[in-house]
Amino acid sequence: MGETTSNEIRQSWQDRVADKKSRILASIPKEFDHPELTHSLEDTASVQDVPQKYLSAKELGITALDASSLVVAIREKKYTSVEVLNAFTHRAAIAHRLLHCCLALPYDLALARAKELDAFLDKTGETVGPLHGLPISVKDQCRLIGTETTCGFVYPIGNVDKDDAAVVKILKDAGANIFAKTSLSIGCMWGETVNNILGRASNPFNRSFSCGGSSGGEGALIGFKASPLGFGSDLGGSIRSPSAYQGLYGLRPSSGRVPYYRMLNSMEGQQTIVSVVGPMARSIDDIEMIMKVIISSSPWTLDPYCVPIAWRTDAVNEITNRKLRIGVFEWDGVCLPQPPIRSALKRTAAALQAAGHETIPWKIDQQRATELVLKVFRSDAAGDIRRQCAKSGEPPMESGCDTPDPALGITQSWDLAMECLDFRAAVLEQWNQTADASKGLPPMDAYIAPVVPAVAPRHGDYSKVRYFAYTATVNLLDYTACTFPTGFVDPALDLPDDTSLVKDAQGGSLPPPTCERDETIRRRYDPEVYNGLPVCLQLVGRKLEEEKVVGMMKIIRDLLN
Amino acid sequence: MGETTSNEIRQSWQDRVADKKSRILASIPKEFDHPELTHSLEDTASVQDVPQKYLSAKELGITALDASSLVVAIREKKYTSVEVLNAFTHRAAIAHRLLHCCLALPYDLALARAKELDAFLDKTGETVGPLHGLPISVKDQCRLIGTETTCGFVYPIGNVDKDDAAVVKILKDAGANIFAKTSLSIGCMWGETVNNILGRASNPFNRSFSCGGSSGGEGALIGFKASPLGFGSDLGGSIRSPSAYQGLYGLRPSSGRVPYYRMLNSMEGQQTIVSVVGPMARSIDDIEMIMKVIISSSPWTLDPYCVPIAWRTDAVNEITNRKLRIGVFEWDGVCLPQPPIRSALKRTAAALQAAGHETIPWKIDQQRATELVLKVFRSDAAGDIRRQCAKSGEPPMESGCDTPDPALGITQSWDLAMECLDFRAAVLEQWNQTADASKGLPPMDAYIAPVVPAVAPRHGDYSKVRYFAYTATVNLLDYTACTFPTGFVDPALDLPDDTSLVKDAQGGSLPPPTCERDETIRRRYDPEVYNGLPVCLQLVGRKLEEEKVVGMMKIIRDLLN
Repeated sequence: MGETTSNEIRQSWQDRVADKKSRILASIPKEFDHPELTHSLEDTASVQDVPQKYLSAKELGITALDASSLVVAIREKKYTSVEVLNAFTHRAAIAHRLLHCCLALPYDLALARAKELDAFLDKTGETVGPLHGLPISVKDQCRLIGTETTCGFVYPIGNVDKDDAAVVKILKDAGANIFAKTSLSIGCMWGETVNNILGRASNPFNRSFSCGGSSGGEGALIGFKASPLGFGSDLGGSIRSPSAYQGLYGLRPSSGRVPYYRMLNSMEGQQTIVSVVGPMARSIDDIEMIMKVIISSSPWTLDPYCVPIAWRTDAVNEITNRKLRIGVFEWDGVCLPQPPIRSALKRTAAALQAAGHETIPWKIDQQRATELVLKVFRSDAAGDIRRQCAKSGEPPMESGCDTPDPALGITQSWDLAMECLDFRAAVLEQWNQTADASKGLPPMDAYIAPVVPAVAPRHGDYSKVRYFAYTATVNLLDYTACTFPTGFVDPALDLPDDTSLVKDAQGGSLPPPTCERDETIRRRYDPEVYNGLPVCLQLVGRKLEEEKVVGMMKIIRDLLN
Repeated sequence: MGETTSNEIRQSWQDRVADKKSRILASIPKEFDHPELTHSLEDTASVQDVPQKYLSAKELGITALDASSLVVAIREKKYTSVEVLNAFTHRAAIAHRLLHCCLALPYDLALARAKELDAFLDKTGETVGPLHGLPISVKDQCRLIGTETTCGFVYPIGNVDKDDAAVVKILKDAGANIFAKTSLSIGCMWGETVNNILGRASNPFNRSFSCGGSSGGEGALIGFKASPLGFGSDLGGSIRSPSAYQGLYGLRPSSGRVPYYRMLNSMEGQQTIVSVVGPMARSIDDIEMIMKVIISSSPWTLDPYCVPIAWRTDAVNEITNRKLRIGVFEWDGVCLPQPPIRSALKRTAAALQAAGHETIPWKIDQQRATELVLKVFRSDAAGDIRRQCAKSGEPPMESGCDTPDPALGITQSWDLAMECLDFRAAVLEQWNQTADASKGLPPMDAYIAPVVPAVAPRHGDYSKVRYFAYTATVNLLDYTACTFPTGFVDPALDLPDDTSLVKDAQGGSLPPPTCERDETIRRRYDPEVYNGLPVCLQLVGRKLEEEKVVGMMKIIRDLLN
């Protein structure tokens, strides 16, 4: 792509990693760094209270705010951009020690930027844009001038970006301050956040649990309130699994809505199922704010792949003050969600019904979807991942591209694209069929579904419990999806199923396990171990319905509160 | 795709072709068929006057109308649907004898449909939709229940469609009557209309000339006024070259605007440069009418690839009553357009200027574009075309997929997709740069360009003069383009260049020929031979700007009239 300068560094990959890691720590101002916090993976305690011991009252006050509140506070000069940057950098430094989640904390760049922004506001009384002074974190796929972008690989270490990713440019133009670049799985192709640079990132609610992946660094950082808002990417669930594990709103837009141009990825050029970039945040209002900023910048003038669709407030107005028709996808017949997720689905459906909305049973053939998605992910038999690893000599890791089969030929890859089209057309028709002509009712507006059947995987557990069908089906369909928190695992309420696994704790019958993975996921649930972990669901709308999904999300948020 | 029933016909491909050809003729009512008209390719005369000898005054009156006028005439009961169908079928039967352009004339189906439509209108006083009774022709890629769809191949002969292509369904639902399926090049991969079923189709303005391709049957039929409006497809210029050679408005929409679902194609699943379906007609009003009908049907509920963008009248209003900024792409530095096309460009630019619009010199690196497009077209080394031919045993023909190189591997095809993205991004930026910030002027609205450098190719000449860069660049960029007629070759005005080829007839200097093809195209122009052939240009807007392009097209049409 030509945006980076290639420094031919003749070093072992281990030396390059050591250099990178020490530079990350060196970039943190001494007063924000607390080396004693460096953690081991075995530590099960929540670290959510740690910042209270290290941050000032002002820093705690700033980091308690969501992004929408922060931009108001800065605009109204309650806080300066520098104060806000410092508070989040301090908290991010703690997060990095505790959770191993940052691949860059470019404080010098961010501080210079914050000073500029403060000077501009002081001088003109105006903000440079709607995000003036807002610190934003981005997955380390987003090129940012003056930083390195690794995509989880070792080979780019030492290459300095000369261009911003399109989404970064838009955020900067709107006044944002990109202050952190977060860890991810190698080449974005794994549902945990693990790479040869930082190792494994952890979940702030319980460090023996994964923060998810591939955008897990974002999940951990935002879930720890060490970033008010960030951007991940999602090819099979990579925004949504970390959002779910950390109790966040994470929007997976349809492709072509948020510009992906100049982001670094693996398998670049694969067009059958495309990765998308999207926001992760603490509130749906933040998601709405940032989407409006991005879309109002006309991203189609920066990225040839983007579609020229302005932010449609009429789509939001249309769903306000009318009865919604919401599908409820309880389970796909393959992997049953654990009790807290089943309970969250029931409560959400009940809240919708109580408010006069209609719920409709909904199910997609996710077995077929998974089959297609895996064929696409494995279509080059991990060739690209291996090639990128070979550039530095780092050892390849397990990835979603692994297969004993050979890479597809071009004809096979075209045939696979047609199979995917057929699947999309079949679900489109199935969705159309939810209309009720006899009552004059249109098709359902969206559906709610689990994000993942397991609340979160423990470190080391992921291979056994991974099941990405609830997210990956959405990627195959290129639908709009947003995760939302419904609460936290409460051992007093979220009782385990009967040990027989065919009855729940209330004696209600459950479908018998369908496969080893299904059984493992069911058995793995332990209320005492899962205690306090966030529980999330996802709301899924049709293709390019970001405004409508955000609007419905706000309605559901209000119903659940 | 599963829309057809496969009849296992154990016949030689020649027998199947003979059967198909006789069935096409047999489907024409005796009173409409005039076997004596069957032509040879050597006949240079225009056949545009032939219908006057065979058609009744009423039939001539009906076929003289454009589509917009016809739907009004039927709605107002000036003509019945049956009368309109019969007039066009009669004229199409003549066209088929003269030009070899129809792969199906399903009169029985169409007559039954017309009778139904008439009965409905008589009974209810209402039309079934905005296209009530309008005969429409479609390229023989469009599945139509009860007919065969060949895509120019022999193997599908005998397979009867059980489903309509999405675009056909929309047209039918709006009241249209699909009455003809038109010839095309084998697998749509050649710029002439030639296949092993019908051989070569000809141009009604001069039967020694090609009608273009791959949607040449549409071009010939509509150019002969034997269809009021039709649908072609365009992967490298396949709507626009036949439109140009027959003096038509032909819209190449961006992908995702008009549904392609359930159309038969070659190289299905190739996603780097995608074929699009679009209308060809005698007037821009017809193009606008049909696009409104299609988009207002919400095609994104039928085709998962379509984008949910309603018809944006505000985009048309925005360009009305303001100064346009139009790029003028005179030549690309590779193949100079022949004198009538250069003259048309100059006249159009002058008309724009005279009306107060701004013209801007514009040029794209079409050499690079062509290189990329050919790599994509040849990426399976004609494997699919050969496979489809092998199904029946028919001999493969020369195609745009031919290459001595082997098929690309999957990684090479992904790399190629990224090269295409880079090209698109570079042109996007180049277009953005046409903004004039010092004057507060936005980027140019569109550009005018040649469709092809040669007015039209004679039969047998195509391989020597073919140069598709002016069209194919638009496909690579996925921009919206519409051809428009500027007049006819007039030997008195459209003088040939000086035999030196470096001066035009007025003594103005020309760039020296750059290559053998450029020289051939220049030398090939002969005003006496080209006399009376239509001359067209294209107007090219940005991606998914169909409304705006149609709106600008109407402005230019008015300026030229």
